[in-house]
Amino acid sequence: MKCRKCGEKASVHMRQHKLALCKAHYLEWVPEQTERFIKKYQMFTPDEKILVAVSGGKDSLGLWDILVRLGYQADGLYLGLGIDGGINYSHESQRLSEKFAAQNNLTLHIVDIEKEYGQPIPVLAEISHRGHGKPCAVCGLTKRHEMNRIARDLGYAVLATGHNLDDEAAVLFGNTLNWSSEYLLRQGPVLLESDGLARKVKPLCRFYEREMTAYCVARGIEYIYEECPFAEGSKSIYYKELLNQLETTRPGAKLTFYLRFLEARKSGELFIEKDMVRAHLHPCEKCGQPTSATGLCSFCRTMEKVSSVAAS
Amino acid sequence: MKCRKCGEKASVHMRQHKLALCKAHYLEWVPEQTERFIKKYQMFTPDEKILVAVSGGKDSLGLWDILVRLGYQADGLYLGLGIDGGINYSHESQRLSEKFAAQNNLTLHIVDIEKEYGQPIPVLAEISHRGHGKPCAVCGLTKRHEMNRIARDLGYAVLATGHNLDDEAAVLFGNTLNWSSEYLLRQGPVLLESDGLARKVKPLCRFYEREMTAYCVARGIEYIYEECPFAEGSKSIYYKELLNQLETTRPGAKLTFYLRFLEARKSGELFIEKDMVRAHLHPCEKCGQPTSATGLCSFCRTMEKVSSVAAS
Repeated sequence: MKCRKCGEKASVHMRQHKLALCKAHYLEWVPEQTERFIKKYQMFTPDEKILVAVSGGKDSLGLWDILVRLGYQADGLYLGLGIDGGINYSHESQRLSEKFAAQNNLTLHIVDIEKEYGQPIPVLAEISHRGHGKPCAVCGLTKRHEMNRIARDLGYAVLATGHNLDDEAAVLFGNTLNWSSEYLLRQGPVLLESDGLARKVKPLCRFYEREMTAYCVARGIEYIYEECPFAEGSKSIYYKELLNQLETTRPGAKLTFYLRFLEARKSGELFIEKDMVRAHLHPCEKCGQPTSATGLCSFCRTMEKVSSVAAS
Repeated sequence: MKCRKCGEKASVHMRQHKLALCKAHYLEWVPEQTERFIKKYQMFTPDEKILVAVSGGKDSLGLWDILVRLGYQADGLYLGLGIDGGINYSHESQRLSEKFAAQNNLTLHIVDIEKEYGQPIPVLAEISHRGHGKPCAVCGLTKRHEMNRIARDLGYAVLATGHNLDDEAAVLFGNTLNWSSEYLLRQGPVLLESDGLARKVKPLCRFYEREMTAYCVARGIEYIYEECPFAEGSKSIYYKELLNQLETTRPGAKLTFYLRFLEARKSGELFIEKDMVRAHLHPCEKCGQPTSATGLCSFCRTMEKVSSVAAS
């Protein structure tokens, strides 16, 4: 197969776009497409300060690389979760995130959860008894809270995460199997700012996971190959496998599923307008982030529980 | 495992309901549940005349059996499609439909498509060049048209089809993968009457396919085991397989998918109210059935094409 742009030997073939490109043109194409999505979904402008949530994986490092190359003001935020899982997971992902930042002369903020809250994520999860024996619920809660906190405290207008199409399609698939209105009406590439929370954007939401792998490999970005050791057996991985089956039989099915959903949302021909659920929120008494609970937000309640158990 | 009602050895186990029943109690349970669905979705009342679309398969014969046992006025309609497929498919399904009607002393209307329109379905499909080399599109079009025609001409208020949960979930899955608003906003156990078309109902929409098999076997109903020979490789079979995988991992997933969709439709919290698309319809100049086309409906246009090719 030949590169559509120069006729040289292609190194990446995107069946869903019927497009093959050589390495050099692929490395041009990915940022061009990202720029197109940023504009199409009105994610941010060049004069806004962006905080990229960096995990050391291909998606977040790839995203950071692309945004900087496109000329955006993008700093990184690494959250040290304290996950080992027999593969030194957090340590290794931090090392690679710091290496990328240093090589590219970029600013990386680092928050160590254990230093900040006394315990690493797996212990916080255990003490707080949230999440059915898995730390994922507490991890998600903590990451959201800390990203919002740092963005607010350091004055970033936008929080960018590396969610790719496979991630987004799997979440959509799970929400669709349950027809959960609240989640379906919120899911999308942009979650607007409100109540002092930064806007959240997903500039990679139209790239397949393997496209991001190809990008990082072609660009020579060193990233952590391993998934989080706690992800094994998760619903989202199961949904990804089902969607991959579908994709194998019908190339583009995953992209169509996600894009038609966004179109249907936009058209007004299928879904109601989401009412502003956030209108019912008020600031948490402790951290000030918006919450639907009275008093403390879920995160602060979890941390109070952890402190009281630790003190007893 | 023991029958929940009598403690005897159970012969059917429904994991999604955590319910096991012996043969005798299963044969009571299925009609009871059907009656519950008929009332819940306001399908019809005992004084309405019902036309059951009968194919000779387990679902339609099971449905007819159940409705008659529940005391409803249900006659059958068999459409002779002229499909052989090396297994004498139409002939055998007609024989079994007639046998069931005779054994139970029921009225079965028979329409032979070849006698009515000059050619069997596979030839009509070939001549009309509809459906990408498969007769399924013309077959569906013809069945819908003929069911509507017979119900109208013979004065039936309601058309009942044997679609089971596996059928409905697969259709829903396909429509969801494409987010096709028009279909999603119409799908459900009841399609109300309008423009002279009978109401359409699916009383078995909450039974798994294997539950209908178990019902027919337990009841001793003789039905055609083979699927239509043209169904092989169809999208709907593929979607059924994917949903079965999901069901194996999470018993009840298929039922939840369908029922939560119906709830979301009803709640008004996710979907817009479907606007009455049928308001834009007008009667076909030839057959009088409602159509969005000007002049002839799709069916009559297809048949005109067939006649003109045959005449030339």
